[in-house]
Amino acid sequence: MGEFDLIARYFKHPARRAALGVGDDCALLQARPGTQLAISTDMLVQGRHFFADVDPASLGHKALAVNLSDLAACGAQPLAFTLALALPEANEAWLAAFAQGLLTLADAHDCELIGGDTTGGPLTICITVFGEVPVVAGRSQALLRSGAQPGDDLYVSGTLGDARLALDALQGQLTLPADVLTAARARLERPTPRLALGLALRGIASAAMDVSDGLLGDLGHILQASGVGALVDVDIATTLIANNDYFIRASGQFDAQWLQTTRRTLVLSGGDDYELLFTAPAHLRDAVAAAGRLSQTPVTRIGQIQAQPGLRLVDGAGQALPNHYASFDHFK
Amino acid sequence: MGEFDLIARYFKHPARRAALGVGDDCALLQARPGTQLAISTDMLVQGRHFFADVDPASLGHKALAVNLSDLAACGAQPLAFTLALALPEANEAWLAAFAQGLLTLADAHDCELIGGDTTGGPLTICITVFGEVPVVAGRSQALLRSGAQPGDDLYVSGTLGDARLALDALQGQLTLPADVLTAARARLERPTPRLALGLALRGIASAAMDVSDGLLGDLGHILQASGVGALVDVDIATTLIANNDYFIRASGQFDAQWLQTTRRTLVLSGGDDYELLFTAPAHLRDAVAAAGRLSQTPVTRIGQIQAQPGLRLVDGAGQALPNHYASFDHFK
Repeated sequence: MGEFDLIARYFKHPARRAALGVGDDCALLQARPGTQLAISTDMLVQGRHFFADVDPASLGHKALAVNLSDLAACGAQPLAFTLALALPEANEAWLAAFAQGLLTLADAHDCELIGGDTTGGPLTICITVFGEVPVVAGRSQALLRSGAQPGDDLYVSGTLGDARLALDALQGQLTLPADVLTAARARLERPTPRLALGLALRGIASAAMDVSDGLLGDLGHILQASGVGALVDVDIATTLIANNDYFIRASGQFDAQWLQTTRRTLVLSGGDDYELLFTAPAHLRDAVAAAGRLSQTPVTRIGQIQAQPGLRLVDGAGQALPNHYASFDHFK
Repeated sequence: MGEFDLIARYFKHPARRAALGVGDDCALLQARPGTQLAISTDMLVQGRHFFADVDPASLGHKALAVNLSDLAACGAQPLAFTLALALPEANEAWLAAFAQGLLTLADAHDCELIGGDTTGGPLTICITVFGEVPVVAGRSQALLRSGAQPGDDLYVSGTLGDARLALDALQGQLTLPADVLTAARARLERPTPRLALGLALRGIASAAMDVSDGLLGDLGHILQASGVGALVDVDIATTLIANNDYFIRASGQFDAQWLQTTRRTLVLSGGDDYELLFTAPAHLRDAVAAAGRLSQTPVTRIGQIQAQPGLRLVDGAGQALPNHYASFDHFK
């Protein structure tokens, strides 16, 4: 089957929102008056972002999910995306499953595939996603990294560290009971973009981004963009690992210090979480809680923005902790 | 140097047209009222679209040029682009040259880099480009593949076959004099997106696309999308190789039949030309010629659209020729 047949069979759908979809030199997209387009692009490479034997449906899900997560972090409503795909071979069964995982998530968020490119090559996926953000009285409603103010609360959505727990287990660095691995692996392979929360936080959050490379490393980007510092309660954050239970069950088997260090490392620098990290003025705590309820997304306050630059970590007793939680660097 | 330093050093420029450029989760782009966005994405993979030892500045040029060529084919004015880059290593000298080639072409067309992603991996470049197309009285002015009508003239811009001539020489399939190789190689490595011609053809061309996989194969897409057939004068098309001279000079050395076959194959199915292939009503011949002059781009009439489906080739004497000129398939 040739390149054009592949595209037609798995990815060509009639255009809905786009004025023109897959199949011409360009797609055509008309923004609604009073809106901006939010645009983000992410490239996933085999051996670096996923294993060669990953379930293709999960890979299709994740490739789009990490892009939708960027829209969520901006408070944007998904509209459409393009897909560029390098494949080592034209494997129909693989493509069918990949397309199913990808398009199921796309349909769930009414995000239309409007164009793409396929080629031979080492398995690589590049998605560019388009979302809509209202402009009200000349002001964009997009959530940016640069708006955090001293005194703002610092929040994170959902759970942290489970994706990395699964990655460590799949790479043989630790052994997990089957049920724990299954749950953690779902977080690694099928992350949930927090789109409803991002929309609900418009006008409430002062800054936001998504956690992809690790909580503290990504927080550093908000602090740098906003010119502020932060205090983070490590003990509160550490409870956010969904598989907390495992660590409690395991407490009889392992050294307590090792368990604590492992949990903290997973949560604070694990990466691949695709949760929203955001700040909001302290007087808007009720509004943040309401946004969480409205979007059916747990939100947890883990610290505070401070005027003094830098990142300060404390434990539950208020004792300062050293920060040796490096961010994930895709070149290492 | 880490991932974020790399991005900052070579690719971060202050946003001009975009409301928000490189450095947040999303870029923000606001379309002007009465316009549509034309969007195209292309992925270039080492070993398939370019050699490992290609000059990085030329590679930067070509990666954007092939995307701009898609905008040209739609009659769109370039606005902005995103860049996703997988690199085997963080090589500063390579990146500096790549960025120079890329951004020089971008600046020449006032096309702004608004976002991106970098990761480790086999050298792969994915660019998504955004252009502007006016909507007049509810009608998009975009040039599509689907508008060719029986009786329309068939045109191609510029020169054809030289990129493939260079590729064949670089792969050792033939030997060229140094000056011929230099000229042909410039066409392979530094293609010229025909943006000015695309803009000038708005309201004149009935269908258009860019020639990337070979003239006749790409023409097939116009014929299919428009539900028509075509007659192509192979002898006229074959004169469009810029290095025609070489074939004339070489005529003493080589078999005349071999020379004719080689020239025809290069021109009709060579690929990597990035010229515009378009159709226009016969009564607009003067307007097409004026569009060529206005955009300082040669245009040549090579055939005619016909109601009967299929592609018919004739030589200068009107004799039918068989079509054994296959399109380039990126999976072969």
